[in-house]
Amino acid sequence: MKKMSPLSGFPEWSPEERLVETRVIEHLQRTFELFGFTPLETRSVEPLEVLLEKGEVDKEIYVLRRLQAGEAEADKNLALHFDLTVPFARYVAQNRGQLSFPFKRYQIQKAWRGERPQDGRFREFYQADFDVIGENELPISYDLEMPLLLHEILDQLPIPPVTLLINNRKVLEGFCRGLRIDDGALAIRILDKLDKIGEDAVRKQLMGMEGGTTRQAEKLLALAQIRTPDASFADEIRKLEVDHELLEKGIEELSFVMNGLAGVPKGRVLADLHIARGLDYYTGTVYEGVLTGHEGLGAVCSGGRYDDLASGSSSLKLPGVGISIGITRILSRLFKKKSLSTNRPTPVCVLVALVDEASRPLSLEVASRLRARGIAADLAPRPVKYGKQIQLAQRRGIPFVWFPPADPSSSHEVRDIRSGVQGPADASLWEPPPEDRNVRLVRLPRPDEGPID
Amino acid sequence: MKKMSPLSGFPEWSPEERLVETRVIEHLQRTFELFGFTPLETRSVEPLEVLLEKGEVDKEIYVLRRLQAGEAEADKNLALHFDLTVPFARYVAQNRGQLSFPFKRYQIQKAWRGERPQDGRFREFYQADFDVIGENELPISYDLEMPLLLHEILDQLPIPPVTLLINNRKVLEGFCRGLRIDDGALAIRILDKLDKIGEDAVRKQLMGMEGGTTRQAEKLLALAQIRTPDASFADEIRKLEVDHELLEKGIEELSFVMNGLAGVPKGRVLADLHIARGLDYYTGTVYEGVLTGHEGLGAVCSGGRYDDLASGSSSLKLPGVGISIGITRILSRLFKKKSLSTNRPTPVCVLVALVDEASRPLSLEVASRLRARGIAADLAPRPVKYGKQIQLAQRRGIPFVWFPPADPSSSHEVRDIRSGVQGPADASLWEPPPEDRNVRLVRLPRPDEGPID
Repeated sequence: MKKMSPLSGFPEWSPEERLVETRVIEHLQRTFELFGFTPLETRSVEPLEVLLEKGEVDKEIYVLRRLQAGEAEADKNLALHFDLTVPFARYVAQNRGQLSFPFKRYQIQKAWRGERPQDGRFREFYQADFDVIGENELPISYDLEMPLLLHEILDQLPIPPVTLLINNRKVLEGFCRGLRIDDGALAIRILDKLDKIGEDAVRKQLMGMEGGTTRQAEKLLALAQIRTPDASFADEIRKLEVDHELLEKGIEELSFVMNGLAGVPKGRVLADLHIARGLDYYTGTVYEGVLTGHEGLGAVCSGGRYDDLASGSSSLKLPGVGISIGITRILSRLFKKKSLSTNRPTPVCVLVALVDEASRPLSLEVASRLRARGIAADLAPRPVKYGKQIQLAQRRGIPFVWFPPADPSSSHEVRDIRSGVQGPADASLWEPPPEDRNVRLVRLPRPDEGPID
Repeated sequence: MKKMSPLSGFPEWSPEERLVETRVIEHLQRTFELFGFTPLETRSVEPLEVLLEKGEVDKEIYVLRRLQAGEAEADKNLALHFDLTVPFARYVAQNRGQLSFPFKRYQIQKAWRGERPQDGRFREFYQADFDVIGENELPISYDLEMPLLLHEILDQLPIPPVTLLINNRKVLEGFCRGLRIDDGALAIRILDKLDKIGEDAVRKQLMGMEGGTTRQAEKLLALAQIRTPDASFADEIRKLEVDHELLEKGIEELSFVMNGLAGVPKGRVLADLHIARGLDYYTGTVYEGVLTGHEGLGAVCSGGRYDDLASGSSSLKLPGVGISIGITRILSRLFKKKSLSTNRPTPVCVLVALVDEASRPLSLEVASRLRARGIAADLAPRPVKYGKQIQLAQRRGIPFVWFPPADPSSSHEVRDIRSGVQGPADASLWEPPPEDRNVRLVRLPRPDEGPID
């Protein structure tokens, strides 16, 4: 037990924070299931080549080695997954014969990346993914279902609102083709850096591409400026007078999604033509969500449509669409700002006092009766003075203390230690106020920042 | 997507099996919290030296390496934890100033061991641990609370009963001292191999110890034979006429625990004097549970009292006691035997049919109303013939199909596709039968093995 300092990038929450995290995860699970997604979990490791095939994350992969492995084993090269999309696609390709399509699954697991830890960026972190994969085809209606569900999920949590920015890679690629840009993928990757490096640098890089022209750069930068709360982005694009079949297809898809989101409160969803998502596997709709008031944190959720990721070697396509929620990124920020908590810091609702050591079975009986009705109860560890037992409950944030009778002629009593109100009670009947029965998420005001954003 | 074969030792469940696993984990979480345990999660990695300090598992540790790490970083030596007890003890030692003692926590996480995969032995597996750690001291009553809670938890699951074997290391060590065995730890490690190598081999090894005598070997083997459903083990030990103060202390503690368990159904708990638990950190009570009818699987839960694990360099002791449940080991066996399942293979209770593409909003509205009342609903992906939509529900195991009206003058109808019964319904009021509302665990008969064990 020598090394006991925290490890940078590997967050560990306090018991109070972990209680919050469990309630957030429970909420996600419940809502995903209500919407027809089935739970799935993949192993934490993948063969290294499966991970290297996708995305540009090779620097960030953690490879495993058995401490005393021989050379022969060393090249087996298992590595921790860096997201949940690639393992899910591998799982579906591997088990397609046993699955029923369209296959809707959610997956809440940790992922690992060896990158430099920064604010909101961790080496070990929780992701909550929900995806649907179809066999051969997947209707565009699922591209709409994803943000609808995301809104439903996040809106019910006491956290700042998330603004979801939506684009379509076909718009970007079609626009590039219409501009006769040869390497559209490169142009999109450059455009994707707009937030990081600014307009001038992007213009320079675009014009520096082989055969790059001022017109191309200006048109692309103009496209990237478009941001509308509805399907009116289409008119804005058409003003730029670039034509391509693929662009039209992309506009059609993005319009369908934006029109379907008309019922979502204003400002929560925007068509934003500069969103590209770096990963190569997206082929249509792309999503990126930011936390209002915490935009500097970067994307707190992201995803998109991938038509070829899961297909593997088969000629039968397995197109999918999904969104990943960065649980650790969101919570780390809200914990830091002390703006998300639970109604109490412990699951325990009632501390059952101990009269003396001999009457421990009596106290245990009270706890059993409460627990049988779903009321979390703990026993005081020692029969010290009642004042000390009440102090223990106070220290742990337990709202009620139960006092079994010291002699058989007296009755049980229960005390709300916040108000000091105490009265007789029966462990088979007593009910705490509804707001105290279970652990609930609550949003806190942030004293250092004034009113809640 | 080349390597798509399963990886030996890294299990992945089907969606139906994962659904079972989520319900088992939910049950454990709920019950742990009812009993006053707070959730905790530690990072997946520890500095290698923290892991090497405890137990004899150095061969089995997975070390991490960033794929493109420089030499300087290579010696940072982070490794995946092999259990949840060592990380928990490290967490408590590291955060003791912020915790309230006695600190009761549960922790359900994966652990990794690089050992050779076998039946019931995995390289990646779920453990569910519950422990309590005290400051300076921890009353013996917690050694009793652990098996009481374990019984409560497992008894409510539709799995074969678990028999918990209990011993106390003070009994073993005190007995060795009474026999004037110099290296008691070695003698206990030899005795611990009784199940694996048999009585003759154990006798030989005991007598082969420095100064080992026939009397010592015979007495120890006689002790290891003792197995009683209550505190009568004490009389059996005393017949062996070995005396030591520590032995008496151990007998006293084990008697307290066995007497406290008198209310547990007969045969579920046994004092078994040959249980030692290999890990060095146990100092008192030790537990080991086996699944009835699956004894060959080995321990499905285990734990004990550790007085020095968490204390670290401080002079203040942090004694603890806890039990770990091997979720993956239990489930892998029950999945193999097809003896544990859920009432349906999907979270979805109702599939809402699509009349035509134009009426998708109507179907979505139905789904929303059902979801708002906690009834999981999914939309049919395409407005194909109703027969096909019903088939889809059948294939996915969804019990109900909802038919919105094809014209406004008709009413909504819902069909139980198992019975074929169909009738009018209102999406804001309709209730499925209580047994169909939620996903529940059910125990299946095992056709290949006759009646349920």
